Formats: sequence, C-alpha cells, structure tokens
Amino acid sequence: MKQVASHKCSSHDHTQPLSELLQVTLFQGCDPSFLQKLEVAGITHRFSKNHVVFMQDDLCEWFYVIRSGWIKLFRQTLDGDEVIIDILPAGKVFGETDIFDNRLYSCSAEVVQDAEVIAYPISMLRNEIATNQAFSMKMLKHVVQGQREKDKEIEHRTIQNAPQRLGCFLLRLIPAKKAGPIMLHLPYDKTLIAGMQSETFSRALARLKEDLNLKVRGSTIEIESMDALITYTCSACSNVYPCED
Amino acid sequence: MKQVASHKCSSHDHTQPLSELLQVTLFQGCDPSFLQKLEVAGITHRFSKNHVVFMQDDLCEWFYVIRSGWIKLFRQTLDGDEVIIDILPAGKVFGETDIFDNRLYSCSAEVVQDAEVIAYPISMLRNEIATNQAFSMKMLKHVVQGQREKDKEIEHRTIQNAPQRLGCFLLRLIPAKKAGPIMLHLPYDKTLIAGMQSETFSRALARLKEDLNLKVRGSTIEIESMDALITYTCSACSNVYPCED
Repeated sequence: MKQVASHKCSSHDHTQPLSELLQVTLFQGCDPSFLQKLEVAGITHRFSKNHVVFMQDDLCEWFYVIRSGWIKLFRQTLDGDEVIIDILPAGKVFGETDIFDNRLYSCSAEVVQDAEVIAYPISMLRNEIATNQAFSMKMLKHVVQGQREKDKEIEHRTIQNAPQRLGCFLLRLIPAKKAGPIMLHLPYDKTLIAGMQSETFSRALARLKEDLNLKVRGSTIEIESMDALITYTCSACSNVYPCED
Repeated sequence: MKQVASHKCSSHDHTQPLSELLQVTLFQGCDPSFLQKLEVAGITHRFSKNHVVFMQDDLCEWFYVIRSGWIKLFRQTLDGDEVIIDILPAGKVFGETDIFDNRLYSCSAEVVQDAEVIAYPISMLRNEIATNQAFSMKMLKHVVQGQREKDKEIEHRTIQNAPQRLGCFLLRLIPAKKAGPIMLHLPYDKTLIAGMQSETFSRALARLKEDLNLKVRGSTIEIESMDALITYTCSACSNVYPCED
C-alpha cells in the first residue's frame, strides 16, 4: 500500500494486511489474489475535517474504505442548498457504486471528523465484477442491501419526528444488547447529526432529556435505560431493534 | 402466458409478445431465449384498487411488470403507521430485487388504481443472474440506478416543500420538452400523491394555483407555463430537468 505525502498519509501497519478491506462485507470471502492486488494498489490518505474527498460529477477513479473518522456524502440543489445523503463511520465503503454510465461520482464526499481513508482504483473493482461471476453476485447483493438501507432512510425522513431520529442516531452508536446506563460521546459536529438543523437538534435533545431522563454534558450523553430509548425510537420504524445493518 | 381466472385475468394480446418485458430497461437487449422462457411462464393478473399484491416479509416467489394502473409500495412501522416508499406507473417492475437473504419481500405492494400486472417466477430471474455474466451486469446496473433514484427521493423528502414535491410529481406525468399549456389528469387518489396527507396536498395545490396560475377542476389540472413550473420545482433539486429516470 502506497502512502502519499501530499495528503499527510499515515504509516500503515503491514502486520495486518487486508484488515480494512475485510471489514467490508462486500470483500469478505473474496478471491485472495484479487484482494492482494487491491491491497497493493491501495493508497492511504489522512484527511482533516472539511477536506473534500471528491465532488459530485467528478470522474470516479477511486473508491474508498474508511479506517477512522467520519465522511459525509451530500448533494447540492440548483439553489445551492446542501442535502446530506449519509454520514459514514469507520469500516464503511463509499464511491464503489459509481461504476456505470459516465462513471461520475453521484454525490460529493467531505470529511466531518479527521479521517484516515484508503483509496483503491475503481477500475480493479469494475474489472473483477465484469470477469468474476461470484464477485458480481456479491456486488449485486451489496447494492441491494444498500437499497434496503435507503428505503429505511426514506421511511425515517418521512415518519420519524426529530427526537426519534436523534434516538435512532444514538442507538446506532451503541453495540447491540447493551442494557444501560450507557455513556456516549457524540462523534462529530452536532449540527450535522441526523441531518438536522442546529435548532432542531437542540429541541430534539431537550425533548429526549425530558422524556427519557438523558443526561447531557457538552458532547457526552448518558442514557439511563436502553429499553426506554428503543421503545421511544423504534416504534416509528418498520425494523425491529437491533437493526441488521 | 397463462391467465388465472381467480384473479379476473385480462386476455393477453399474443400478437405483441414480450412487449411488457421490453418496456423495462433491465430486459432490453437480453438473451431472447431467456425472455421467451419468462414470457411463457408469465401470468397476467387484473387487480382492482386496494388489492394487496404481496405483503412485506411474504416469501418472494414472483416479480411483476405493470401493464396498466398504479402500484403503491409501502412499509408499516411497529406503531402501525404506513410509509409510502414509491408509487409506480405502467412499464415499471417491482419485487425483482428481493432475491437474496431470506428471499422475503422487503415491502408491501397494493393497487392504487385498477391495474393489470404480469407475474414472472423470481427463480428464473435468480437463475439467469447466477449463470449469465452479461445479465448479472445488467441487473447490477439496474439496482445501482434504483439506488440513485432513492438518493433523489431522500433529497426531496428532506429539502423540497410540499408545493415543490407536488410540482415534481406533476412534471413526472408530462413527457419532457412539452412547453404548455398542458392539461393533466391526476392518475389516482389525491390523498396518496407525493406521499402527502390530504390537507397538505390541498394547501400545496392552492399554493401552486396562486404562484403559477394553475387551473384546477376536480382531478384535472391545467398548467399554463412549463418553464415556470420547472423553475419553481427543480431549483430545490440536484438534478437538471428533464430527469433521466
């Protein structure tokens, strides 16, 4: 794996090869020779907050796996407003589906908390999909799974109120089957959480404090009862807690 | 193509074989022998409004192409609220991505305007994907395209106000590059349009009447200027009119 000084690259731990790729379900159980080729071609970047990884409609030459930090995917309307499509944590992949048509990125990607990401050539992914039937099926399954997550997001943006969306965001930060009390640190700028405006976020948090006895100190939140949070949040969702994704 | 009396099937016009399948981009340019096998296995159903085609979590045994009418895809929250994921017109396919995992439908499907649909065995689709690399790529492209449309839906539900969402809905009913004035009939129950509540719809329509000089008589809407409607609606969208989908 190469390191690019111009991007302040991290030193990569070669005693754990493939570890980032194997965090992504898409690459689990893949042909080892394909993974090794990807690994060799991978370039580690360390990006600061606000760095733009790529812009919507840029030519897609790389896809990325997040080693640490958080990445925001967004689109801009003709009026110049920004719409957050997703905010991704470590272990997630992005840019990997922009392999068809004009091969342009379908959204922009920006760092919202200092991040280390590994860039892999999209041409290698495209080639493996076109020539390896088993991997092509894995990719199809991966994209279908992504579509299910988007259905859930459409559902949440339609039916959940702001406190429930914030509750859902908090639940995703907590490993499943923890009972509480639980202490959480908000992972990035709270004006971005759950795609809310800053005032909406403040009102939603105040409501959760009152209804569920949450304790808040700066960016730290203490949750007394997981059951209460789950009941409050997941009643306005078609999925049963814990979510599969 | 078989016809099932219990579903009040239509007579099928055998002088135009494959016409429904070839309306769907996924099947254009496919192996003719695969299309013929699908065609022979297809069963035409004529369903009345409110008929439930399948329920979320039913075993997925069929996928469907819509010949006429409109089909609503929806999910239900644990609280029993219904969330509309999409409402599909003639020429669209549904149920075709539920081929993995437990092979259960990921949403429910209900007829919102009397419909004629053709059911094809999902096992034949699954088999073609698993054995035909070229078709597997077509399916992948189809699902990626579906994901882009969902990104746009997430964007719209986040940033467009109700009059803009109604405007977007109207624009989709009009063939591209028509200048206006244009006379439109709302295609189904207006309480379902653009996923809005009935009162929201009424307020949105009143706003469009005022701002864009729309004339409304029952379910018929006359649009004076397409340019005005496009400017009003598409400024709050990241896509340029006309949409590719």
